[in-house]
Amino acid sequence: MKKAKVFAGIDIGGTNTAWGITDISGKIISKSSFKTRSQNDFSVFSSELSSTILKEVEKLGVELAGVGIGAPNANYYTGNIEQAANLQWEGSLPLRTLMEEKFKTKVTVTNDANAAALGEMLFGSARGMKNFIMLTLGTGVGSGIVCDGKLLYGHTGFAGELGHVIMVAGGRECGCGREGCLETYSSAVGIVRTTSQLLAEMRAESSMRKLPPSELSSRIIAQNAEKGDPVALEAFNFTAEMLAIAITNAVVFSSPEAIILSGGLARAGKLLTVPLEKHINDYIMPVFRGSFRVIPTGLPESDAAILGSAALAISETGKLD
Amino acid sequence: MKKAKVFAGIDIGGTNTAWGITDISGKIISKSSFKTRSQNDFSVFSSELSSTILKEVEKLGVELAGVGIGAPNANYYTGNIEQAANLQWEGSLPLRTLMEEKFKTKVTVTNDANAAALGEMLFGSARGMKNFIMLTLGTGVGSGIVCDGKLLYGHTGFAGELGHVIMVAGGRECGCGREGCLETYSSAVGIVRTTSQLLAEMRAESSMRKLPPSELSSRIIAQNAEKGDPVALEAFNFTAEMLAIAITNAVVFSSPEAIILSGGLARAGKLLTVPLEKHINDYIMPVFRGSFRVIPTGLPESDAAILGSAALAISETGKLD
Repeated sequence: MKKAKVFAGIDIGGTNTAWGITDISGKIISKSSFKTRSQNDFSVFSSELSSTILKEVEKLGVELAGVGIGAPNANYYTGNIEQAANLQWEGSLPLRTLMEEKFKTKVTVTNDANAAALGEMLFGSARGMKNFIMLTLGTGVGSGIVCDGKLLYGHTGFAGELGHVIMVAGGRECGCGREGCLETYSSAVGIVRTTSQLLAEMRAESSMRKLPPSELSSRIIAQNAEKGDPVALEAFNFTAEMLAIAITNAVVFSSPEAIILSGGLARAGKLLTVPLEKHINDYIMPVFRGSFRVIPTGLPESDAAILGSAALAISETGKLD
Repeated sequence: MKKAKVFAGIDIGGTNTAWGITDISGKIISKSSFKTRSQNDFSVFSSELSSTILKEVEKLGVELAGVGIGAPNANYYTGNIEQAANLQWEGSLPLRTLMEEKFKTKVTVTNDANAAALGEMLFGSARGMKNFIMLTLGTGVGSGIVCDGKLLYGHTGFAGELGHVIMVAGGRECGCGREGCLETYSSAVGIVRTTSQLLAEMRAESSMRKLPPSELSSRIIAQNAEKGDPVALEAFNFTAEMLAIAITNAVVFSSPEAIILSGGLARAGKLLTVPLEKHINDYIMPVFRGSFRVIPTGLPESDAAILGSAALAISETGKLD
């Protein structure tokens, strides 16, 4: 009897590495995760990860048709992870080459936000869409841009870094070495910075004044905003305004039919989306008014990273055979 | 004997309408132009334009294989010109439908900056490139974005309006009804506005103080900058800085291998490009450093619009047969 074809989706993050085995429809058959820092040597890490997955494939009695890997700074063209600041391995890591040796099947790599966009296109909120932008509002801001049904990689393979559009020349210091990038404003860390600044600028009462700045988090700010804290509400308003300008600028660039939001800050829901819609309405160029929607991710948080990486494998190899 | 195949390129501008007949290599066989305002009725305008070209095709004894038309606010998908502010005809104009009735061959329309980008790709500075951005720095700022060898049209057909990315929230009033758009800073009109502002802010001597503001032009500012006028030099520096931020933001979006500049302001040459390169170097995200070039148009000014529109026809119909 012919074995059922499956795909492996792997998400290498700064803290955890998650992997799953799915069928072509995105149904997860098996999954697991472990600490990324468990191995200091990248080739040992790759070896252990691949042999764990291959054992599971054998146990399930299925055939591995392709592997997709999402990782910070992973380049679709070269297959390498290039100088990822939040991984413990330095320099250029030959991720695809190492993994293809182990898996003996096609391995495709890209960064985590690009993989997330493919996950939405195949299994989530962007099913049937040919033009959309995925924004992951976490510690930083990641993005994956789909134009005409394909992920935008550009000349270098690094296209789609909307977290690093400059919103304010000479603005807040960014981890990328520059100033005023979107992710210094409209991320989970950005809203904490905004709140610290507003606590200095505003005179309003706020229970957040009793917290040491190092204990502020986007979650605490959201909890305070829910209770009507004026500083927390203004922090969401400002965060949403910066995001609205970035979104309206992205719309004049590629004219998507949807902007899909995911990540910790997006889970604040209406606290973010109500002021966001208002500001988009104020800033949008008239010809694009009503031409796109802002919608939440259609994937469960726990599986989104695995499904994104599996979608990468499926979109590259699923049509073969 | 089989007739030689040719293509018609038509550029409908606010002032002039130019047309030309080219072979598939972009060699112009015949061309002419007339005042766009010569006809108040759009269908009469279309009729006269098409019959003039068809007569020329007959005279030349060639076969018309396709027609491309560049016009302000022309939509590739619908084939209509939509509410073009600088044309005398109002509302939605069924350009493609009218023209296909007359020409009896495939007619393709898009906006002038998109056509210019195709002209560069087939016959100009972008030959052999798959990822680049064309910026036309004229009265306004137009753009055409090519990703993976194709023009970006997006969900609406209006993608690629980089003249309307918001550079400064609450900034200068723009013709689009919003504030702070790139074209209010880095266009021929933008540098005049900047110079007026600098004449108020700076105390430096400048012979431009003797001119009524309505007589200032990008050309006069360039002439003064050539002579070392400090206000004119600072105007170019500021114009270049705003353009550099917009370019570096476009680079994180689509990672092009080149930015191609054309239009009146681009003709200032090194006055613009020397400070532009400096500011790009300051603002570029490290991962994209050295990944793209800023280069001038490769087409002669007099023929660029015709060649762009002809390239549109050739890219749509040239591969048939």
